[in-house]
Amino acid sequence: MNKDQLVIGGKALTSRFFLGTGRYPNPLVQNQAIEASGAEVLTFAIRRVNLDDPEDDSILQHLQDRPFTFLPNTSGASTAEEAVRIARMARASGLSDWVKVEISANAMTLLPDPIETLKATEQLVKEGFTVLPYTSDDPILCKRLEEAGAAAVMPGGAPIGTGLGILNPYNIGLIVESAHVPIIVDAGLGSAQDVVQAMELGVDGILMNTPVARAKDPVRMARAMSLAIEAGREAFLAGRIAKRRYASASSEFEHLAVK
Amino acid sequence: MNKDQLVIGGKALTSRFFLGTGRYPNPLVQNQAIEASGAEVLTFAIRRVNLDDPEDDSILQHLQDRPFTFLPNTSGASTAEEAVRIARMARASGLSDWVKVEISANAMTLLPDPIETLKATEQLVKEGFTVLPYTSDDPILCKRLEEAGAAAVMPGGAPIGTGLGILNPYNIGLIVESAHVPIIVDAGLGSAQDVVQAMELGVDGILMNTPVARAKDPVRMARAMSLAIEAGREAFLAGRIAKRRYASASSEFEHLAVK
Amino acid sequence: MNKDQLVIGGKALTSRFFLGTGRYPNPLVQNQAIEASGAEVLTFAIRRVNLDDPEDDSILQHLQDRPFTFLPNTSGASTAEEAVRIARMARASGLSDWVKVEISANAMTLLPDPIETLKATEQLVKEGFTVLPYTSDDPILCKRLEEAGAAAVMPGGAPIGTGLGILNPYNIGLIVESAHVPIIVDAGLGSAQDVVQAMELGVDGILMNTPVARAKDPVRMARAMSLAIEAGREAFLAGRIAKRRYASASSEFEHLAVK
Amino acid sequence: MNKDQLVIGGKALTSRFFLGTGRYPNPLVQNQAIEASGAEVLTFAIRRVNLDDPEDDSILQHLQDRPFTFLPNTSGASTAEEAVRIARMARASGLSDWVKVEISANAMTLLPDPIETLKATEQLVKEGFTVLPYTSDDPILCKRLEEAGAAAVMPGGAPIGTGLGILNPYNIGLIVESAHVPIIVDAGLGSAQDVVQAMELGVDGILMNTPVARAKDPVRMARAMSLAIEAGREAFLAGRIAKRRYASASSEFEHLAVK
Repeated sequence: MNKDQLVIGGKALTSRFFLGTGRYPNPLVQNQAIEASGAEVLTFAIRRVNLDDPEDDSILQHLQDRPFTFLPNTSGASTAEEAVRIARMARASGLSDWVKVEISANAMTLLPDPIETLKATEQLVKEGFTVLPYTSDDPILCKRLEEAGAAAVMPGGAPIGTGLGILNPYNIGLIVESAHVPIIVDAGLGSAQDVVQAMELGVDGILMNTPVARAKDPVRMARAMSLAIEAGREAFLAGRIAKRRYASASSEFEHLAVK
Repeated sequence: MNKDQLVIGGKALTSRFFLGTGRYPNPLVQNQAIEASGAEVLTFAIRRVNLDDPEDDSILQHLQDRPFTFLPNTSGASTAEEAVRIARMARASGLSDWVKVEISANAMTLLPDPIETLKATEQLVKEGFTVLPYTSDDPILCKRLEEAGAAAVMPGGAPIGTGLGILNPYNIGLIVESAHVPIIVDAGLGSAQDVVQAMELGVDGILMNTPVARAKDPVRMARAMSLAIEAGREAFLAGRIAKRRYASASSEFEHLAVK
Repeated sequence: MNKDQLVIGGKALTSRFFLGTGRYPNPLVQNQAIEASGAEVLTFAIRRVNLDDPEDDSILQHLQDRPFTFLPNTSGASTAEEAVRIARMARASGLSDWVKVEISANAMTLLPDPIETLKATEQLVKEGFTVLPYTSDDPILCKRLEEAGAAAVMPGGAPIGTGLGILNPYNIGLIVESAHVPIIVDAGLGSAQDVVQAMELGVDGILMNTPVARAKDPVRMARAMSLAIEAGREAFLAGRIAKRRYASASSEFEHLAVK
Repeated sequence: MNKDQLVIGGKALTSRFFLGTGRYPNPLVQNQAIEASGAEVLTFAIRRVNLDDPEDDSILQHLQDRPFTFLPNTSGASTAEEAVRIARMARASGLSDWVKVEISANAMTLLPDPIETLKATEQLVKEGFTVLPYTSDDPILCKRLEEAGAAAVMPGGAPIGTGLGILNPYNIGLIVESAHVPIIVDAGLGSAQDVVQAMELGVDGILMNTPVARAKDPVRMARAMSLAIEAGREAFLAGRIAKRRYASASSEFEHLAVK
C-alpha cells in the first residue's frame, strides 16, 4: 500500500489533497487547517502586487522554507495571454514552475473558458512549466489538454465555491477512464461525500478550498476531508460490490470464526 | 473529540461501525476484516441448530472471550412470534441480551415487515431485551419503534445486499431530525460514498456486511469503510458550507500565512 | 388504444388524473382547472360541519349533478377510529362510498401512519367501502394494504405539498412490479417531470392538488399535468430504449423515406 | 397561447420537436413516426454518396415536395474542415442552407469536439448558413457559439444514443439562463421524463432520434415524446410551485365550488 503514490510532473506525492489557501477566517486557522489536511500541494492566486512588493506580502514572507509544493493559479485572468503573463511572473519570482491555469471571463459562474484554457496550456507547456489546467468536465477537452502536455488535468465538479458537488459523475468517469495523466477534481465540492464519490470514480486527487475554509470548523473539516480522500481511495482500490436490483441475504450461510 | 461517543443500551461505543459476519470468502479474511474495521459490535443470524449443537458451531466456540458486543439478529423470521422465539433462544444461550429484530416475509426484497417489526419490538422490550429493529425508512414507523422502547432504530438504505445506497436521503434526514435514540443505517449500502452520505445526514452509525465481505479485497474495504465513517462523522460535526447557485471566488481575498 | 382504461372499484376511468380541490386562488380558477385537467375523480376533505350544515356548504350545493366520482378523504384524522368515523359520515351524507384513507399524527410532515392506515383500511373494506389508502412508499405495507382489500393503493412521492417529487423511484417501481391493484402516486409531486417519471415507472394514475392549485397559472398547469400523464402513459406503453454507457450513432445507417 | 412560437433563423416553428430520421425498423414505421411526432424539422446525415448518386438515394427522391425543414448534419466529420465541406455539399445539392454541426473524433462517446465545433460554426456563419451546432453542455462554450452567430445552440444531455438523460441539469439551466438564441437539447435523452425535464428547465426544443426509432413501438413513442414536449413547455410557462422541506396540507381551507 505504500506504493500508492501520485506522481505529478516527476514529483511523488503521498497526500492526494491539494488545498487552497484563501478565505480562512484568520491566519491561525489557515495554518492549523493546512496542518490537519496533510496537504503537500498548496494553491493560491498570484497578483502583481504580491510580487512587486514582497515586503508586504504574507506569501513571500512565509513560504520559502516550507516543504510544500506551491501551485500558483492564474485566477483573475480572462484570456490565455493574461494567464501566461501571470504564470511567468510567478516563476520569475522564484516561487514555483508549477501553475494552475484558471481562466474565466464569466463573473457569475467563474467557469473556465475552454478555448483560452487550451491555448494557455499549450503555450505554458512549451515554456517548460508544469501545467495543471482547471477545466470544465468536457471529456474531449480534457483529452485535448492531456495531449497538449498538461501534467495533470483538473475538471471541476461544479462552479467554484458553490458546494454543489459533482454535477456530472458520468463525465468524470469517462475522463478518468481514458486519461493517461492524473485527474484532479477541482472546484465545486461541498461535502465529504462529494470527495469520496470523486475518489471512488477513480480520480487521483482533490483540490479544495471553500469547503474547508468556510466550514463552521475549518480545522476539523480539513481533517474530515483528508480522511474522506483516504477512505475513497482505499474503497476504490478495494473494489466495490456490484449493484443488484433484488436483495441477497447476508446472514444465510455465515460461519463466524473469530479466533 | 474523545467525547464523541455513541451510547446504546447503556453501553458506550467508540466505533460507529456495526459489522455483519456473513459471506466472507473464508474465516481468515473474516477475522482480518473484523480487525481492520475497528467494529465493536458484530451481528449474525441465530439459528436453532447453532444453539442446540454448540460443539459443532463456530459462533459458540469462538466468541466467548472476545471484547465484542454481540448483536444476534432474527433473520429468517417472517412473523413477530418467530422473531421473539429466536431472540429468547439467543439470550438463553448466554450470548447476548441485545437483539436486532429482522422480520421479512418477502424473499425477493427481504424488506422488513413494518407491522410485525413493531409488534416484536414491543414484546422484546417488555421482556427486557436491548432491541435494535431493522426497519424501512418510514419516518412515522421509526418514531413508533422509538416510542416502543427500541434502544436504537435501524432504517435500511436499500434492500439487503443490493448495494444501491441510500435510496431516500430525505427520509433518513427526517428520521435523524426527530429521533431521541441513535439511528443506525442498516442494509443496502454499497460504497464508501454511501457511508459518508449517511454520516453527513447525521446518523449515529452504520451496520454493514455484504459491501465489506463481498468486496474484491474485503480487508482493505473494511478499513476504507471505517475511515469513511470517521470522515463522515467529522464532516458532520465540522459543519459544511451551504450550497449556492452561483460561484464565489476562493482566491480573491486570500492571505497566506503559513508560519 | 381505447382499451387503456383504468378500473377501480368496478368503475372504468379514461383519465388517470385524480385532482384535489383545495388551495385554488378562487372558485372560478378551481372550476377552470378541474375542466382543463380532464379529471374524473375529485378528492376533498370531509369535515363534520360540511355535512351538518349543508345549506352553507359549497360542496353539497354544487356537486350533486356532476359526472365526477367523488373521493372524500379523511385528512385531519390521526387514528384509524377517527378515519372510520369520517368515512361513515361521508357515506351517510350520500356523497360517495369511495374513501381515501389519510391518517397522520405528525403535523410537520403529514406522513401517513402505517399502522393506523392498515387498520382503517381493514375496517372500511369490511364495511363495504371502496378504499384507496394514502400510504408511505413502503412496498411491504403497500402489499399489506392490497391484501386487506384496498381498491387501489396510493403511495406518496414525498410529503404533501412539498413538491419534492418522487423521493424513492426504486420503491415505487417495486410496488408497481408486485401489485395486483392499481397504484396511484399521491402527494409530493411538483413538476410535470415528476408526473411523467411516475407514469413511466408504471403507476396507474396520479393524485395531485398543490402543484396545480398553487402554480402561477393553475389552469395552464392543470392542462400541462394532464398532458404529462398522457405522455408518461404512452411512453410507458411504447417501451423505452435501454440505457447504454457508450454512444451509438443514430445517423449511421439511415435511409430516409418520407413518402 | 398561439404566440408560443419558436423562431430559428427567421423561420417560425409551431412544433418544438426536431426528429432524427435514422435507425427506424423500416421506412413505413419511419414515416408513421414522423407523422405522429408532429415534427417540422428533420435531421439526417449527409454523405457524399447521397449527393453524387441521387437516383439511388431515398433522401433526394422523397424529400423535395414536403413541408419539412431539413437540417442536414455533419456526423462523421472529425474536424472543422470536414464539417464545412459536408455543409457546402448539402447546400450545393439544394437541400437546405441549415446545418447541424456535429464533429467528433471519439468513436466511443461521439462527444463533440469543442474547438473544432466552434471553428466550423464561425466559418459556416460567415458563409451564410443557418448553423445549429451540437455541443457539450459547457455553458462557456455555448455562449461562445452564440457569439459566433449560431442560430440555435444544441447542448447534449448525454452521449448520442445512450438514453442516459440529462446528466447535468444544472448546466442546461445555466445555458438557458444566459442564452439569447434558442437552446435545443440534442442527444442522450431516453425517456419522456428526460424530455419534460429539459423543457421545464426552459429549453426551447428537443432533438431526438434513437429513443423514438429504437423504442418497442416507435410510432407510439413519437406521439408520447410529442406530448411530453408540449406538457413540459406548458408546465414551464405555467410556473411550478417552490419546493419545501416540510408538508403543507392541501385539504385544509378548501372550498369546492364546481358550478
